Amino acid sequence: MRDFLPADKARRERVLSVIRERYRAHGFDEIETPVVEEYDRLHAGIGGDNEKLSFNILRRGLDAEAISAAAEDPAALSDLGLRYDLTVPLARFYATNRGQLPGVFRSIQIGPVWRAERPQKGRYRQFVQCDIDIIGDDSARAEAELIVASLDTIDALGLTGGMVRVNDRRALDWMLDSFGFAEGERPGVLITIDKLDKIGSDGIVAELRERGATASAVDAFAAFLHRPQTLEYNPYGEKQIRKALPENAPDELVAHLVGLGEAVAAARPSTGAETEHVIDPIPLQFDPFLVRGMGYYTGTIMELAHPSVAYSLGGGGRYDGMIGRFLGQQVPAVGFSIGFERIVDLLESADDAAGQAVVLVHDADVPVAELVAHKAALIADGARVRLERRTKNLKALLERAAADGYTAFAAVRAGDASDALEVKPLA
Amino acid sequence: MRDFLPADKARRERVLSVIRERYRAHGFDEIETPVVEEYDRLHAGIGGDNEKLSFNILRRGLDAEAISAAAEDPAALSDLGLRYDLTVPLARFYATNRGQLPGVFRSIQIGPVWRAERPQKGRYRQFVQCDIDIIGDDSARAEAELIVASLDTIDALGLTGGMVRVNDRRALDWMLDSFGFAEGERPGVLITIDKLDKIGSDGIVAELRERGATASAVDAFAAFLHRPQTLEYNPYGEKQIRKALPENAPDELVAHLVGLGEAVAAARPSTGAETEHVIDPIPLQFDPFLVRGMGYYTGTIMELAHPSVAYSLGGGGRYDGMIGRFLGQQVPAVGFSIGFERIVDLLESADDAAGQAVVLVHDADVPVAELVAHKAALIADGARVRLERRTKNLKALLERAAADGYTAFAAVRAGDASDALEVKPLA
Repeated sequence: MRDFLPADKARRERVLSVIRERYRAHGFDEIETPVVEEYDRLHAGIGGDNEKLSFNILRRGLDAEAISAAAEDPAALSDLGLRYDLTVPLARFYATNRGQLPGVFRSIQIGPVWRAERPQKGRYRQFVQCDIDIIGDDSARAEAELIVASLDTIDALGLTGGMVRVNDRRALDWMLDSFGFAEGERPGVLITIDKLDKIGSDGIVAELRERGATASAVDAFAAFLHRPQTLEYNPYGEKQIRKALPENAPDELVAHLVGLGEAVAAARPSTGAETEHVIDPIPLQFDPFLVRGMGYYTGTIMELAHPSVAYSLGGGGRYDGMIGRFLGQQVPAVGFSIGFERIVDLLESADDAAGQAVVLVHDADVPVAELVAHKAALIADGARVRLERRTKNLKALLERAAADGYTAFAAVRAGDASDALEVKPLA
Repeated sequence: MRDFLPADKARRERVLSVIRERYRAHGFDEIETPVVEEYDRLHAGIGGDNEKLSFNILRRGLDAEAISAAAEDPAALSDLGLRYDLTVPLARFYATNRGQLPGVFRSIQIGPVWRAERPQKGRYRQFVQCDIDIIGDDSARAEAELIVASLDTIDALGLTGGMVRVNDRRALDWMLDSFGFAEGERPGVLITIDKLDKIGSDGIVAELRERGATASAVDAFAAFLHRPQTLEYNPYGEKQIRKALPENAPDELVAHLVGLGEAVAAARPSTGAETEHVIDPIPLQFDPFLVRGMGYYTGTIMELAHPSVAYSLGGGGRYDGMIGRFLGQQVPAVGFSIGFERIVDLLESADDAAGQAVVLVHDADVPVAELVAHKAALIADGARVRLERRTKNLKALLERAAADGYTAFAAVRAGDASDALEVKPLA
């Protein structure tokens, strides 16, 4: 877990305010839930592997007898836990507050989550997630709204040129079925396919054979992976999708994926600008091998990519089965999580557009009232003001202030008769 | 612990953004620490009664043997805990990061804290604290900056007319000493004095006698409380302070308190406006019986009052002993905590100054691409946009949207040939 010093914290807050403002513009409303949820809910099997990484809170008021008894049943030591994601709390929130929410509810959730990961570079035990979700809409309109809002948000952060890779869990299911994988072995096959970027198609085929997957199905899959392909460019659309899938993909599935492209193209009309070999393509790419780990996805899955980095900047998918679990009925839902920590790391510049920032350097013996009056006057003029007692090394003091984002300075000497301050820019 | 629905969450975020912006203008820099701190640090005796209210986190990887052994030593079950305030984490942060901070460090901390309070009206188990602190400045300049920044902040929130009650722990000590209370009984006497607003001066005297406090000291205190006073108005200054204290108050103490008034007056020059019997007084009031609970205060203590409410909207004080505990040296520090939850409750209006907000009401069979294009065009024009599928009761739908802060609507019908939307204001 990390401390954030002023420059880092300021950058994080600026990024958050852009994300909030853009998602709100797209009709999403922010909510907040407690960081603590009931132990039983956090360990109900929804959270996948993250359940094992949860920090649990010690039940209060345990006596020696209760502690001894818990040696046989450690779960009795805990009644609450820190959330490990924002999806389980959203499902609980929706079940609790549904009557007060619109029929189609578009939520923004921004907040920390906790996982007891082994400390390693880029993995934190406390980190911020930014999720948007649409609950109550089973149409592709929902996916399109999430994609367009997320692309607009990273644009607004200066990360233009982003792109969303899409797939559909139903396409994966159909494809694995068409190769001949049995239903029971598909989850394992998906775990292997998810490594395609890392180990390549030969690696995938080898791992599937090692796993003892149905041999004829692995053969069919290998033949598909190694099929001859021409390098002809096809923009996102029916032709590209059909070429990327085995033959005879279900029309309904293809139409769903094509519709997503039409919707995104409608929201982001072509500018005619050229990038590489392509004239302003739709910022969508169909990837038949996109898996994404969470077991609760039921339809579209999405991942946000940007040319500046190899890893994804967010992702999400449709999970129609989960929200309804607490309500005993089916409630369609689709969500997108933007990778806040990764984006903050990408945006190195600590630019502060907040106007004039003045360091007021004063002698030790200037009366407090005089200093405070000068400070108030500058603030009233719209500046941000920091008082600094003059030290022998004025240059070092001013350099430090400049590094902290200050843009100007003024000096107040003891016994200075003049009321007016001379504010000079910091070089 | 509470869920925050969209209107509440939006109001909370607006208040936070004003607080952030104002404190930053006054030269404070925001930092953030993890919500979790080490168990031993949270239970080191700094947190007072709050230590007993802390939520502790179950140590991971405990086996049956370790759990059984913990029956004799329950503290062994926990290595981390949720913070119950922002002051203990600030002390730890400063000790860790001192080398990267300016010599006088003005921090903003905004974040949730947790206390296992019994649930009751107005008490929450998770609530947000907003603290500003100045570390490394032992002069009254620091107190003046905190007071002026906090008054400016509540002004900016629309709570003009705020006022700060001040006292000094050294004044309380001197006063109790001058009445003849022994040093050992003073903490108990302070606890009683702290109830003055609730039980009145007769109640105080009775409780002190019940407590068995030194009889002659209680007599002297009672005589002081009941001394004849004229109702003459004195603005904050030496005359008022000397009148409010027993005779012969130490000059240095009085000068310190007078200096605070001069500084605040300099930052907030008189407007000549009349309020009640008084012409634009300095927004400071000396209260010789202001105690504030925390044992770690060593000098000035402050409380923020507002004419609209009987309770305080924040407070703080100087605590020169504490920050240095982790460093093994004396580090002067003074802090002010603005009562975020109380202020949010006061500011009922959910005014959203964010410009046009449009509900786009559409028939079920309008193509997704068409809807998404309309939405994108309105967003590009600066509006906030929510899609709503038309229901039979359009009036109810629009009322709901108006309650959510939407200001206009437009209808998209299936087969509508026209590209242009007609955006109408919501009545």
